[in-house]
Amino acid sequence: MARWEPNARQRLVLAALDLFGEQGYEDTTVAQIAERAGLTKATFFRHFPDKREVLFAGQEAHSLLLAEGAAAAPDAATPLEAVGAALDALTASFTAEQREFAPRLLSVVAASTELLERATFKRAALAAALASALSKRGVPELTAGLAGELGAHAFYRAFERWVDPASERTLTELARQALGELRSAAAALG
Amino acid sequence: MARWEPNARQRLVLAALDLFGEQGYEDTTVAQIAERAGLTKATFFRHFPDKREVLFAGQEAHSLLLAEGAAAAPDAATPLEAVGAALDALTASFTAEQREFAPRLLSVVAASTELLERATFKRAALAAALASALSKRGVPELTAGLAGELGAHAFYRAFERWVDPASERTLTELARQALGELRSAAAALG
Repeated sequence: MARWEPNARQRLVLAALDLFGEQGYEDTTVAQIAERAGLTKATFFRHFPDKREVLFAGQEAHSLLLAEGAAAAPDAATPLEAVGAALDALTASFTAEQREFAPRLLSVVAASTELLERATFKRAALAAALASALSKRGVPELTAGLAGELGAHAFYRAFERWVDPASERTLTELARQALGELRSAAAALG
Repeated sequence: MARWEPNARQRLVLAALDLFGEQGYEDTTVAQIAERAGLTKATFFRHFPDKREVLFAGQEAHSLLLAEGAAAAPDAATPLEAVGAALDALTASFTAEQREFAPRLLSVVAASTELLERATFKRAALAAALASALSKRGVPELTAGLAGELGAHAFYRAFERWVDPASERTLTELARQALGELRSAAAALG
């Protein structure tokens, strides 16, 4: 019975985004998502534990990219330079297609308290993954924690700009810019 | 039928904590919480929208205390000094009783992904409330955002120390100390 299902994961994400946008997150079922994608419920559950996680499936991969990027920074890098390397690694993984469906993703998430909570949790998870990678480089715990938060902050700030159709810069450039802005902002804390 | 129900809100919180600890969050119903507190389900729903919110009922009050504290800081205060004033206002509201049941609260939350997500959202909401209050003081948006995150970070760091029975310092003292530590850590970001 098993057959090759090209891009099943991506088809499910796009189908979910369509349906969440059309009829709302609450009123959409896994069965409907699978049907819209031309796949079965069983295939859905091979890829995602539930309909919510369709929208946050990148959390583990993104955490790993941040951790690997930070780990690969030169030994002499400051904590924020290592954060910059982590953001380079993460942002390089984003595709033009992700940019294209990002506005729909953001508007679906913004319309649901449950999804907003989950999105906040993903952001905290990315910050924690980055902080943990910095700790492994010998950065003291508290500085690593702050640097992780700054990295997550820079990423989301850059992402918001990137999804603007008028933006002409890459996500990597925007993340570097955002990190620089946050660094300056930190110097003004007093 | 209506009658005076002394400390209904607090009784419901304590009953919920007991039951979540005894039999798990998932397996506890609103009816059981009300019964344990010696109250009706109708009374429960006059105080909380659902069983989850019993544990996060302080979010609005805490956000307000932070905002009021920041607003009341002297005009000449730096962003972090205003954060300190906000933390003073928030921490002064905590009682010995809250300290007593805090370890149970933390362990119940730590045992549930749903509650961990909600707790992360509360932390982000406190940071956002503080950032918004700082913006109203004229602090630039990005610095206000960072200062809000630092304030939330300091509060939770202090709270963890405060609930340790061996700790002899007040929550206010611990929050001031944590904010100082975070300020030093920020200076080491590079």
